[in-house]
Amino acid sequence: MKAIVYHGPRDFRVEDVPDPKLESASDAVVRIERTAICGSDLHFYHGDPLPVTGFTIGHEFLGTIEDVGSEVTRFRPGQRVLVSCTIGCGHCSLCDQDLYSGCLENTRLGPITNIFGSPIHQGGQAEGARVPFADANLMPLPDDLDDEQVLFLTDILPTGTMGADLAEVGLGDVAIVFGCGPVGTFAQQAALIRGAACVIAVDLDEGRLAKAAARGCRPLNPTREDVSEVARELTGGRGADCAIEAVGKAELVLAAADAVRVGGRVSVVGVITGGEVSLPFMTSMTGKNLTLRSGIVNPQRYYPELMRLIRQGRLHPEEIITHRLSLADGVRGYEIFDAHEEDVLKVVLEP
Amino acid sequence: MKAIVYHGPRDFRVEDVPDPKLESASDAVVRIERTAICGSDLHFYHGDPLPVTGFTIGHEFLGTIEDVGSEVTRFRPGQRVLVSCTIGCGHCSLCDQDLYSGCLENTRLGPITNIFGSPIHQGGQAEGARVPFADANLMPLPDDLDDEQVLFLTDILPTGTMGADLAEVGLGDVAIVFGCGPVGTFAQQAALIRGAACVIAVDLDEGRLAKAAARGCRPLNPTREDVSEVARELTGGRGADCAIEAVGKAELVLAAADAVRVGGRVSVVGVITGGEVSLPFMTSMTGKNLTLRSGIVNPQRYYPELMRLIRQGRLHPEEIITHRLSLADGVRGYEIFDAHEEDVLKVVLEP
Amino acid sequence: MKAIVYHGPRDFRVEDVPDPKLESASDAVVRIERTAICGSDLHFYHGDPLPVTGFTIGHEFLGTIEDVGSEVTRFRPGQRVLVSCTIGCGHCSLCDQDLYSGCLENTRLGPITNIFGSPIHQGGQAEGARVPFADANLMPLPDDLDDEQVLFLTDILPTGTMGADLAEVGLGDVAIVFGCGPVGTFAQQAALIRGAACVIAVDLDEGRLAKAAARGCRPLNPTREDVSEVARELTGGRGADCAIEAVGKAELVLAAADAVRVGGRVSVVGVITGGEVSLPFMTSMTGKNLTLRSGIVNPQRYYPELMRLIRQGRLHPEEIITHRLSLADGVRGYEIFDAHEEDVLKVVLEP
Amino acid sequence: MKAIVYHGPRDFRVEDVPDPKLESASDAVVRIERTAICGSDLHFYHGDPLPVTGFTIGHEFLGTIEDVGSEVTRFRPGQRVLVSCTIGCGHCSLCDQDLYSGCLENTRLGPITNIFGSPIHQGGQAEGARVPFADANLMPLPDDLDDEQVLFLTDILPTGTMGADLAEVGLGDVAIVFGCGPVGTFAQQAALIRGAACVIAVDLDEGRLAKAAARGCRPLNPTREDVSEVARELTGGRGADCAIEAVGKAELVLAAADAVRVGGRVSVVGVITGGEVSLPFMTSMTGKNLTLRSGIVNPQRYYPELMRLIRQGRLHPEEIITHRLSLADGVRGYEIFDAHEEDVLKVVLEP
Repeated sequence: MKAIVYHGPRDFRVEDVPDPKLESASDAVVRIERTAICGSDLHFYHGDPLPVTGFTIGHEFLGTIEDVGSEVTRFRPGQRVLVSCTIGCGHCSLCDQDLYSGCLENTRLGPITNIFGSPIHQGGQAEGARVPFADANLMPLPDDLDDEQVLFLTDILPTGTMGADLAEVGLGDVAIVFGCGPVGTFAQQAALIRGAACVIAVDLDEGRLAKAAARGCRPLNPTREDVSEVARELTGGRGADCAIEAVGKAELVLAAADAVRVGGRVSVVGVITGGEVSLPFMTSMTGKNLTLRSGIVNPQRYYPELMRLIRQGRLHPEEIITHRLSLADGVRGYEIFDAHEEDVLKVVLEP
Repeated sequence: MKAIVYHGPRDFRVEDVPDPKLESASDAVVRIERTAICGSDLHFYHGDPLPVTGFTIGHEFLGTIEDVGSEVTRFRPGQRVLVSCTIGCGHCSLCDQDLYSGCLENTRLGPITNIFGSPIHQGGQAEGARVPFADANLMPLPDDLDDEQVLFLTDILPTGTMGADLAEVGLGDVAIVFGCGPVGTFAQQAALIRGAACVIAVDLDEGRLAKAAARGCRPLNPTREDVSEVARELTGGRGADCAIEAVGKAELVLAAADAVRVGGRVSVVGVITGGEVSLPFMTSMTGKNLTLRSGIVNPQRYYPELMRLIRQGRLHPEEIITHRLSLADGVRGYEIFDAHEEDVLKVVLEP
Repeated sequence: MKAIVYHGPRDFRVEDVPDPKLESASDAVVRIERTAICGSDLHFYHGDPLPVTGFTIGHEFLGTIEDVGSEVTRFRPGQRVLVSCTIGCGHCSLCDQDLYSGCLENTRLGPITNIFGSPIHQGGQAEGARVPFADANLMPLPDDLDDEQVLFLTDILPTGTMGADLAEVGLGDVAIVFGCGPVGTFAQQAALIRGAACVIAVDLDEGRLAKAAARGCRPLNPTREDVSEVARELTGGRGADCAIEAVGKAELVLAAADAVRVGGRVSVVGVITGGEVSLPFMTSMTGKNLTLRSGIVNPQRYYPELMRLIRQGRLHPEEIITHRLSLADGVRGYEIFDAHEEDVLKVVLEP
Repeated sequence: MKAIVYHGPRDFRVEDVPDPKLESASDAVVRIERTAICGSDLHFYHGDPLPVTGFTIGHEFLGTIEDVGSEVTRFRPGQRVLVSCTIGCGHCSLCDQDLYSGCLENTRLGPITNIFGSPIHQGGQAEGARVPFADANLMPLPDDLDDEQVLFLTDILPTGTMGADLAEVGLGDVAIVFGCGPVGTFAQQAALIRGAACVIAVDLDEGRLAKAAARGCRPLNPTREDVSEVARELTGGRGADCAIEAVGKAELVLAAADAVRVGGRVSVVGVITGGEVSLPFMTSMTGKNLTLRSGIVNPQRYYPELMRLIRQGRLHPEEIITHRLSLADGVRGYEIFDAHEEDVLKVVLEP
């Protein structure tokens, strides 16, 4: 089958790879019908060369089950499914708490090694994939919804929603979202739908800020306004109630801590690779009575509530799609996404 | 000054009463600029004759402070203020938890005796009022907001909001609101703004149902559809996640318990006077793993968040006003409201 | 095999019944090694004759797996297990929320029909049992713990714990527990271990009150003291923070509502069969800003935390056992338990 | 009057200072009857020389009110009171949420400038003190409790309790407390009283570890055992549920993050002055789905619940007192505390 394969930074290739097949009694094999390029895939695209090459990229995908192992009890061939970006066993004490990303069985090789599209697990920018522990990692795709409406339930929609959850966005809050990319967009929508009075959307890209304004946010370009100052103005001097970092930059974690009030909450759903975040602890944490949270998303946790919001027409995740390409043109998709060409926000691929 | 005075059921009169004056060092006297007729005032209008007559009705009002006692530290004459419908001392262990309605000092004569517009406390359908424990029971009225935008912060807006709070309306929930009157309207808005996927609005009045549909609810006339059945259809058979009773009828508490799922929550913000609610405990509570809550509102608790939502344009409470009359025409206001004339939803009076 | 069989009120018999066997691919068959008589079994013992007879009683039991169906993936023959008193499918949207008692698949015949030891599901006062949906309804029994330490995890220990959970017993609370029987005992322990400052234990039996005092409660015999009055004395006049009904009498629900403060919480874990609870709604619910909860326990929900507390020596559930009999003497066990003979608190049976 | 006055690091002197007097209508003057040396006072004792000298040290004290300003409504001369270590106005939007430490009015000179015993606010290691905003910052001292039982309610008892609160110690948790000093001791007690199954108490001092073991903790000397390893052994490999840093060292924040499980919570109540905490964000925060919290205590928030626990005999804070000296011997008190002489845990001074 065809797949987008990692050969090194900026060296992704569409090529033939072996068809997926059952390797364990709890596996399923899925024929992939829609997949997307995620901002975190760009870390492979930009980063240092990995010692391992030749693996299939991608962790946002959906399709139809072709085969299941004998221990799979919740799903059957022919059923349409979403695939969680992280892989849990479904049995351990962390999976039992919906913390699949920390699955004790699937992180034996190290933290965050249980994600599709990495040297350990072949990804989903392909015509098919093997899904380990299918009962735990598949989610049913209802017939009455369109693929594009639900595709982002596999990662970035719950990630943005988790951002608002971890920041405890509450009724009447003034919330800040750093970043108006795909995850930032969903974080802004989640903050609004949880009842924030005002969501300050921060970005450098005026086009993205205009879209944020259109969805009801208060746009802010940090080259022209100071985030903390605007937050204080909107709150009688005390600072924002909470902030969500959806970019993945250490300095924005500090900016978030600075802009929130005493007793505020900061969540970080941007991926901060390569390095440390240095917190001036007394002023940014202790003196602020701050709550700081981050995390890898567990789509299964947010699936029921998000599915109901989509079905009832209160969320329209498909609106972020700007580019639809065939899987064969996937490398071009990366180029567009990487270069921020053509006002790209999200690239979807069809195998 | 002029006031609407209780002389018995259906015998309310606009007449001259003594001007309010300070009686305690913690009092304030407020010149009233806007007041409203509440559904719970109708309980006096319809109910059995009370042993005491001659008191001023009304517990939803705002105005300007004319005088304060020596112990009032948070407010000054000339300041514009909202007045809480319930009266707390601000010092006891319940007031300290924002449970002013249960104030240990002000309920010594019995539960729910600490409400304006009753035999014990002269009300606010008048040109002025004495407000005991002013520091605890006044709330600042900002200059940039219109009287009509904030008037309902004194009672029914936080009451509807409390309905959604006590029912724990959550992201993606299917919620039911029994009643599309003023409190029901605000409960529906609160359920939507807290992220409900679907709010089923129940009423017999087609005009009110049409308004509920316009604000995004799923209207339901129980003479034509079965509430529990519709709730199950919308939830794959399990029942609504929560329900809010905003009418004040015992049978609707049972209907709410019937329509929610196992693990559901029912809140009752309608005023159920005169009588008991008989719960078939095993089937409606134990077998349902149900949470049942009710309460008298504490506007101070919800004031900050609601004020921010109004100021940011996310709530427009003034939209429910259908009738504006002078205080002198207040008796006519009661007749209209009582008879459901002229598609009345809310009557506001100007002294 | 031998089992205690229902033939009508006060007509329970130890007799031979067919051996359990797998009937579905998700079943397990368990050889029972310890079982107990529950207070709720007495409802069959006392109640009106049921139309169906000849079924095995009992829903608190543990043992060793003898056989499992092909779809059972989490358990294997030879493994020692606890069996949940309620039966969930493990797949539906309520089981997914740990609300097995409301399982959409297993309550098709009506609410609360998914409990072992009833006309629909053969019970566990026997030498063996078939356990449907074994993956969902079995819990591992660790080797380092004694049978008697963990037996009550199948029902009454989590039930008492749930009582404190539903009543939201918090740090420094004054809590009331109505009843010093097995469930009341565990509710008292749970209230203490959650940090209550004072637990008022109410019972008519002086022996049971003495035991409650010994475990750190404030004993109260309602024939000699008034519960509400004592609660007010201990709280500066405001009333208890929460109360747990662990007897199963309608009038105690009202007594609980009366004894708690405004903003208080009442949970009901006693089984109130046959009838309604009539709440004077305005005074006991609305005017009290009360939260009222009840429920059927889901042992799986509380298993992890209770297991850790037992293993670390912070809970000793076996202390309530007063009588150990063979299964063959089970009918005598019922007589003792029913008649409150010999200071009985809990009867355990060994097949 | 006499007071302990800061003249520079290791240069504290008992000397005569002016008597406190009312400076504002919301002030009270308190005659101090008991005060204590806090670990955070040692930061002045050890730290770099401050530009300002000549101020009175100390922020843990109680006494009797001598005088109140005209706007003080909740307290009267002659009343015995505890004084909060932080100073709030009681009126701003943060004080309204019990976040006095972030008081908008009293932190105008910078964060954490509203603490007694600093260049800005004369402290309580003296014969008397002026208490600004007395209504907000005094707490009643009941007659039936001994001074030593309640003295630590002014700071370190609620600080330790807050540690367990911010770490969300829950029923059945395995919790770690770094530090067995005064705050660590109270954090351990709070973790136990909230229902932790096991509290791992970490310290280098064997005497302090022995005391921790005596109060029910699992002692751990990190020179002999590895904290993370022990945590994993006690939890089937997954790590502790939560950890509390009660020492004030950056490296212990990292050790805490390392020792907790995915989804764990780390709170920091030790005072980390002078510097940054560098978090390897991907592994310690994102990959761990971690919650990290810190804060300055607000004793008023915890006063009601702690007072009830002390009165009911469930907490005995006075047990940590090892040294009682006169105020005149206060400098000697600092020497003992600083040098860890004589198994010192807590030094109390009597003016």
